Amino acid sequence: MKIAILGTGTVGDTIGSKLIELGHSVMMGSRTKDNVKAKAFVEKHGSNARAGTFSDAAAFGEIIFNCTSGGASLEALKMAGEQNLNGKIIVDIANPLDFSKGMPPSLSVVNTNSLGEEIQKTFPLAKVVKALNTMWCGIMVNPAMVNNGDHNTFVCGNHEEAKAEVKRILTSFGWKNENILDLGDLKSARGTEMFLPLWLQIYSAKKTGTFNIKIVE
Amino acid sequence: MKIAILGTGTVGDTIGSKLIELGHSVMMGSRTKDNVKAKAFVEKHGSNARAGTFSDAAAFGEIIFNCTSGGASLEALKMAGEQNLNGKIIVDIANPLDFSKGMPPSLSVVNTNSLGEEIQKTFPLAKVVKALNTMWCGIMVNPAMVNNGDHNTFVCGNHEEAKAEVKRILTSFGWKNENILDLGDLKSARGTEMFLPLWLQIYSAKKTGTFNIKIVE
Repeated sequence: MKIAILGTGTVGDTIGSKLIELGHSVMMGSRTKDNVKAKAFVEKHGSNARAGTFSDAAAFGEIIFNCTSGGASLEALKMAGEQNLNGKIIVDIANPLDFSKGMPPSLSVVNTNSLGEEIQKTFPLAKVVKALNTMWCGIMVNPAMVNNGDHNTFVCGNHEEAKAEVKRILTSFGWKNENILDLGDLKSARGTEMFLPLWLQIYSAKKTGTFNIKIVE
Repeated sequence: MKIAILGTGTVGDTIGSKLIELGHSVMMGSRTKDNVKAKAFVEKHGSNARAGTFSDAAAFGEIIFNCTSGGASLEALKMAGEQNLNGKIIVDIANPLDFSKGMPPSLSVVNTNSLGEEIQKTFPLAKVVKALNTMWCGIMVNPAMVNNGDHNTFVCGNHEEAKAEVKRILTSFGWKNENILDLGDLKSARGTEMFLPLWLQIYSAKKTGTFNIKIVE
């Protein structure tokens, strides 16, 4: 499949690299055509990797992964261009963390709204699926690295077939079907984004990001 | 120990009943002296149980459990009387859920503040410990009912000796020491309170409240 990764940070590199390993063609998009990290990504992966602007990447991809930082996501997606997003799945991995008021970070969109919902409202013809935003990126693409892969990830969104497609991708990353919990429509992105402050506190208490939560009954 | 339970709902009844089972003397406090649920609590438990106003209960208790609903907690604690709270541990189990704007509930205090911090600011000579607010009350006092008791609970607060005392109480409820995670000062109450929207979504997806989260590495 042709996939766009918006964002050249660790999350984008991690997701993009995994998708290439799985045989997909990936274009990493950034603000400019000549982003150093995007070029390094292409050099590392060869012919299945490409680099371009947000707009180039979104036009290329059949599915778009939003791996930009939450505070910059809406602007990056606007630069990607609504016409390049319409009808496509946007897998939104970003969290609207706001470090401007010091630590702990607060959320710039919260409580009665979420970044996922904001993206959906801004691009009503795209199909936003919130996913993977509740853990460190290494675990997103390699769930087996903690507790033999037995822990949970969430999906939510307003389009059932889009969620089903994202679940297939998660399964290809190594997630067991029974550990992918569908929380319903995109309003549930509020909950998964609002988990971040607790995630950061657990990270701080345990001094490691290599953990996830498992729902036990 | 003499313990005050503020609030006559399911949470107060559950915590109060467990404390009596463990040999403590408990006074359940409510807005009025003749609350029907508080009277039933006394009838159920006999001589180790008492009922009174918020003020009666707070004066009686060496430790205060805030089991009121979050939106009413500050008012209830004000009725309890600052002089009855000063120097004492307040175990704050409440969540500031606001159902007034429909489902899903939002939080009335959130993001850059928390109910736990508000209580501490309002009663600066009390020792607020946020605890147990991330699960259904049945599990709070009987962790063994899910996953053989192997899952997590959090404490946070600005007073180390108060947190140590609350940890001892949690241990007496059946919590394993290694599963009680100290998240640091009371700012961390933001994270545990902001977990509630995700909790409610998991509850809705799984159609049961008999679950908790376990941190896996």
